[in-house]
Amino acid sequence: MSKPYVIGIDMGGTNTVFGIVDARGVVIASSSIKTQKHNNIDDYIDELYVEITRLMEANDAVGKVHGIGIGAPNANYYTGIIEDGVNLPWPTPVPLAKLVSEKFGIPVAITNDANAAAIGEMTYGAARGLKDFIMITLGTGVGSGIVINGQLVYGHDGFAGELGHVIMKRNNGRLCGCGRTGCLEAYCSATGVARTAREFLEARTDESLLRNMPIEDITSKDVYDAAIQGDKLAKDIFEFTGNMLGEALADFTVFSSPKAFVLFGGLAKSGDVLLKPLRQSLEKNMMTIFKGKVDVLVSELKEADAAVLGASALGWEAK
Amino acid sequence: MSKPYVIGIDMGGTNTVFGIVDARGVVIASSSIKTQKHNNIDDYIDELYVEITRLMEANDAVGKVHGIGIGAPNANYYTGIIEDGVNLPWPTPVPLAKLVSEKFGIPVAITNDANAAAIGEMTYGAARGLKDFIMITLGTGVGSGIVINGQLVYGHDGFAGELGHVIMKRNNGRLCGCGRTGCLEAYCSATGVARTAREFLEARTDESLLRNMPIEDITSKDVYDAAIQGDKLAKDIFEFTGNMLGEALADFTVFSSPKAFVLFGGLAKSGDVLLKPLRQSLEKNMMTIFKGKVDVLVSELKEADAAVLGASALGWEAK
Repeated sequence: MSKPYVIGIDMGGTNTVFGIVDARGVVIASSSIKTQKHNNIDDYIDELYVEITRLMEANDAVGKVHGIGIGAPNANYYTGIIEDGVNLPWPTPVPLAKLVSEKFGIPVAITNDANAAAIGEMTYGAARGLKDFIMITLGTGVGSGIVINGQLVYGHDGFAGELGHVIMKRNNGRLCGCGRTGCLEAYCSATGVARTAREFLEARTDESLLRNMPIEDITSKDVYDAAIQGDKLAKDIFEFTGNMLGEALADFTVFSSPKAFVLFGGLAKSGDVLLKPLRQSLEKNMMTIFKGKVDVLVSELKEADAAVLGASALGWEAK
Repeated sequence: MSKPYVIGIDMGGTNTVFGIVDARGVVIASSSIKTQKHNNIDDYIDELYVEITRLMEANDAVGKVHGIGIGAPNANYYTGIIEDGVNLPWPTPVPLAKLVSEKFGIPVAITNDANAAAIGEMTYGAARGLKDFIMITLGTGVGSGIVINGQLVYGHDGFAGELGHVIMKRNNGRLCGCGRTGCLEAYCSATGVARTAREFLEARTDESLLRNMPIEDITSKDVYDAAIQGDKLAKDIFEFTGNMLGEALADFTVFSSPKAFVLFGGLAKSGDVLLKPLRQSLEKNMMTIFKGKVDVLVSELKEADAAVLGASALGWEAK
């Protein structure tokens, strides 16, 4: 193969991580720059070009890159545009694919970060061989990438798969970052878990390790650490979270009847404290014809490489 | 074309309607038999064979049929089996595709009735030219057929698209035919509308034309007739129904980002009394990035032909 490599770029609001990846999904080399350093997209792309070129030169990859794949918030696969990137330091919309491909002279494909994760998982991870699965990313928000019959679902406008924004609580639901109330993301993201902690601590009077820290500073990691130590209130928070996730996944099942859900992101690494109530709730809430048929898997991608790998897999289809 | 026709069969619990259809979607001839007359699948297929053969002979179609498409409750596209047909007069599962193709010597494809309707709508109806849409059938139950990128979604096991069974009310929801509670179908089907009528009549004291009939006999048609005459309570029932449908369709939108929803079935013909609150609710509950992008259409297929046309379209892909 004359062009045996792809480049994967994971653009986050804080950092941009990138790597050179071969066809077997090995990250040959990787590095990063600060997204936040630039309040101008052209400066950002200039630095990206300098750093990626340096990486290619150091690894004998110049002229050997088939395509560049980018995972970025609100990135549209069809248009190549970041349409409304609220966490980025420059004005949107930005024609990212065009700007990057012109700068590098290499074909570029972009998609949102959850879709990139789904493609990575299908190509290199827990979803290898699965034609029908749904990736659920449990991070600051709740994202998703839906794969049906081996194809990522983009929808008519490129924005399909916003499963963090189905409504789980129709009355008195929590305010979500999307402006509506009651979304799954407002409960089952890392920030959702922290919000649940504050609610439980205020509504209850029982002792908890979580009462030893300032309530506004509690993170989902703190709740996890307390739960692992056997803290009842912390375990109840994960029970609440897993229970709602199970209800949501049961609803998603009637849509596309996936063979598996693949969980990804910080919260997905909580182990049984989350997965046990989640799986119980999923089976309990499942429509009869789907009971016992749907697996809940955790991403197998190495944490540090996952986002870059996912984005890079998209580079193979860039043209 | 040596085989210019397909046969479409719409198998319902009461009647089985079938027709010979040409490539432009014209129903050349059609007829029906009573499904309920037979408590044995072999007798049923024998009568179907006799009657369809008679129809083919009368229309010079013998030897000219490319394939047979069948829409039937709980029919599985992948396996060719009716897996759990609760409303059919013989025991299930039944290997329907195999039995019919052996009897006729013609390739057979089967799917459930809502999927057949979606294929018909895409081939001949309101969804022509649409690659991403969701068919919602509002009949005795609520069914759905999901089309993504021009392909019907079957899921890993053939049972995808059971959107009548997403949970709309998580606490104290109505009992659904599927055994769970709070499903969309329990509220927004024709029977759901009748149940809402009974609830409203019992909970309220205002006058209504619906109070002139025995409460247990009220059908969705009665509610519609009263609403059209300006009856406030009947209009509120449709407002309640349209509002919940709008909430549901807004949730479905974040999944596959369809260009349109196509409504089909008796309730779908209710006009503005249903569509106005539905469209208002859909836009009100829509995630911002999808607002104003998604159409709500009503099936264009001629009522008498719709189910047969939908099934027949599947006959072109039978092999």
